[in-house]
Amino acid sequence: MSTYVLVHGAWHTGAELEPVAAPIRAAGHQVYLPTIRGNRPGDAKTTGLKEAIQSIVDYLAENNLKDVILLGHSYGGMVITGVADLVPERIRRLVYWNAFVPNNGECLNDMVPPQYVGLFDMIAAERGDGSVVLPFPIWREAFINDADLELAQRAYDILNPHPLKTFSDTIALKTNPAEMQIAKSYINCTEDTALPHGYPWHPRLSEKLGLFRLVQVSGSHELCFSDPPRLANAIMEAGRD
Amino acid sequence: MSTYVLVHGAWHTGAELEPVAAPIRAAGHQVYLPTIRGNRPGDAKTTGLKEAIQSIVDYLAENNLKDVILLGHSYGGMVITGVADLVPERIRRLVYWNAFVPNNGECLNDMVPPQYVGLFDMIAAERGDGSVVLPFPIWREAFINDADLELAQRAYDILNPHPLKTFSDTIALKTNPAEMQIAKSYINCTEDTALPHGYPWHPRLSEKLGLFRLVQVSGSHELCFSDPPRLANAIMEAGRD
Amino acid sequence: MSTYVLVHGAWHTGAELEPVAAPIRAAGHQVYLPTIRGNRPGDAKTTGLKEAIQSIVDYLAENNLKDVILLGHSYGGMVITGVADLVPERIRRLVYWNAFVPNNGECLNDMVPPQYVGLFDMIAAERGDGSVVLPFPIWREAFINDADLELAQRAYDILNPHPLKTFSDTIALKTNPAEMQIAKSYINCTEDTALPHGYPWHPRLSEKLGLFRLVQVSGSHELCFSDPPRLANAIMEAGRD
Repeated sequence: MSTYVLVHGAWHTGAELEPVAAPIRAAGHQVYLPTIRGNRPGDAKTTGLKEAIQSIVDYLAENNLKDVILLGHSYGGMVITGVADLVPERIRRLVYWNAFVPNNGECLNDMVPPQYVGLFDMIAAERGDGSVVLPFPIWREAFINDADLELAQRAYDILNPHPLKTFSDTIALKTNPAEMQIAKSYINCTEDTALPHGYPWHPRLSEKLGLFRLVQVSGSHELCFSDPPRLANAIMEAGRD
Repeated sequence: MSTYVLVHGAWHTGAELEPVAAPIRAAGHQVYLPTIRGNRPGDAKTTGLKEAIQSIVDYLAENNLKDVILLGHSYGGMVITGVADLVPERIRRLVYWNAFVPNNGECLNDMVPPQYVGLFDMIAAERGDGSVVLPFPIWREAFINDADLELAQRAYDILNPHPLKTFSDTIALKTNPAEMQIAKSYINCTEDTALPHGYPWHPRLSEKLGLFRLVQVSGSHELCFSDPPRLANAIMEAGRD
Repeated sequence: MSTYVLVHGAWHTGAELEPVAAPIRAAGHQVYLPTIRGNRPGDAKTTGLKEAIQSIVDYLAENNLKDVILLGHSYGGMVITGVADLVPERIRRLVYWNAFVPNNGECLNDMVPPQYVGLFDMIAAERGDGSVVLPFPIWREAFINDADLELAQRAYDILNPHPLKTFSDTIALKTNPAEMQIAKSYINCTEDTALPHGYPWHPRLSEKLGLFRLVQVSGSHELCFSDPPRLANAIMEAGRD
C-alpha cells in the first residue's frame, strides 16, 4: 500500500480530483487531495509561489505523511518541486502530470508562450484582485478538447480564479530536479494542447528531470474530468516502485 | 443533429467515404459526400484550385446547407479553407483531417517535401493530360501502412488520376485560417507518414489554425479505408461543439 | 506463411523472444530466434560487430533460410543492416524495432547521447573483460518503464554482459539502407525512452531507411517482456507484404 498526495493545477482545488482518487483507493492505496493556498475558498488572490509551496509542506507535516508519492498537475509541478526541495525526506517519488518542471530561479511564465503571459496579465489587470481566469474558448478547445461541451462547461464552472503572482514568482531551490535524489516520473497526456505552438510538455519539460520514467496516456490536459479512471491507472503506473 | 460535409483528398472521390459516413449517420447526423471538381468521372484533369473550391461552394448552395461541419482530408484542406473564406456564413466548424492548411498565397506544393514535388512533376509529364498518380510502393508503405496488401491494392485500384494544377495553384484568401471567426479542429492520425522526413502534419500545419481542437487517433493517412468506424468517431469528437 | 528471424538487442539472447514468437507461430508463421555471437553463453566479450553480423549470416545459411522477414531490436538493427548488405538475396523485408539504422562507416555509439558512451566506457573499464552492463535504475526507469518492479527485476536478471566493441566498431556497407532494394518497416514503441533527450528512435533513425512502413505501438523499449503478444501483432503488421 502506498501513500499518494495529488496536487492540483491552477484554477483547480483538490476536490476535483476525487474521481481520480477513487480507483487508486480501490486498488488499496491511501490518497490525499490537498488544496494549495491561493485556491481555497476565501484565500487571498495575492498569494505567491512561496506561500503556495509552504501550504503543501505544512499539509504533509500536519498529516504526518512519509514515503509519499507526490504528484503535481500543471502548475502543481512548480509546487511539488518546491516541496521536494524543502522536505525530501518525506517523498518516495515525484510524479509530474503534464506539469511544469522548474530549475532554481525560474517561474512558470518562463515556460509558457509569450502570448499566454500577455493574455494572463491583461485578464488580471481587468479583474483587479490579483487573480486570472481562463477564457472559455481556450479552455474548451485547448484544455479539455476530449470532452463534450456539457462536461467542458460543467468543469469550467467549478474552476476558481487563480493567483497570478504564483505564475510570475521565481522558485528558490537548493537542488534542481535533475539532481534530486528522489525517483521521478512524468505522465504525458498525448492530446494535451494547453501549451501550444512549439512549447510541448514532453520532452521539453520532462527532460529537466534527468533520469525519469515516462508514462503516456491518451487524453487532454484535463483528463481528470474526461476520464478519471484512465488517469488513475496512469498515476499508479507512474507511482509504483 | 448536425450536418457534416466530408471533402475527400487528392485521388479520391466522395464515394470512398461512404463507410465513414455510415456510423456518423447512425449517430443521428446528416452527412454529405461531394466530389471535388477534377476528381469526378469525366472531369478535365486540367482543373485548377479555384474551380475545385468553387465546386464545393456550389454544392453547399445547391443543397442549401447551413451550420455545416466542413471536413477536409489532405488536399481537401486546401479546398475547405477556400470555401470557408468565400461562404463563412454557412459553416459552423472546420475540421482538418491530416490536411493542408494554407495561408493566403500558398499552394499545396509549398507544404510538401521537394522530392514529392519533383516526383509529381515527373509523373505528370509522362502522363501528359495534367494528372498525376501515386506510385504503388509509396501508397502501400507510406499512405496505407496500417492495411494488409489486399486492402491496399483494392483501395489503390479505386483512386483516380489527380489534376496536378490544384497542387501548384496558390490560394487567394481574404482571411487566413488563424484569423477566421469559425471554430476549428485538427484530426491527426498518429501513424500518418504520407508526409515524411521533417514535414509532419501536426503541429507544423495544425498550428496555422490559431486556436484549434486537437483530436488524435491511431492510423495511417488512409484510415477511411483501414478503419472507417474509428475515423468516424474521431470526426464526431472533432465536429461537436 | 512467412519466415521470421528475430534478432535481439544488446544484453539479450534469442531465448527472451520466445513469448513474442509464440503468437506469430500461432498465426501460422515460422519464427527463428538466433543469438548473436558475443551474447551466447561462453562467447568472448571481445566480440566485434563484424563477427556479430557474420554469426547471423551463418545462421541463415546453416538453416537454409530464404524470403526472410528479418527483424532487429535496438543494437540488432546494426546487425540486420550488415546481414542485408551481405546476403540481400535471402531477405524479403527488414523490420527495425526501436533499432539503430547505420549508414556505411557509422557505429552504434555515433547514434547515442555522449553521456551514454561515457557511462558505457566507464562501466566496461571497471569490468575489464570487454563487456558492459546496464545500471539497474536506468534499466528500470528508461528501458522497461511499462513493467512493474518484479518483472523489471526478473528481466534484468536474465540479461548478459554485452561486448562493448560492437558499439564502437563502425559498420562497412556496400549499400546504405535507404538505397537497399529491400522492403523496410520501422516499429516504434511510443513510450521508449531508452534513448533520451533529443535522440528519438523515430523519425531520427527511421528516416535513414528511405521509403519505409511505420508501425507504432504503445510500450517501452522492452515490450518483449512487458507485453509480448502486443509486440507480436506489431511485428506481423510490419512484416506482411
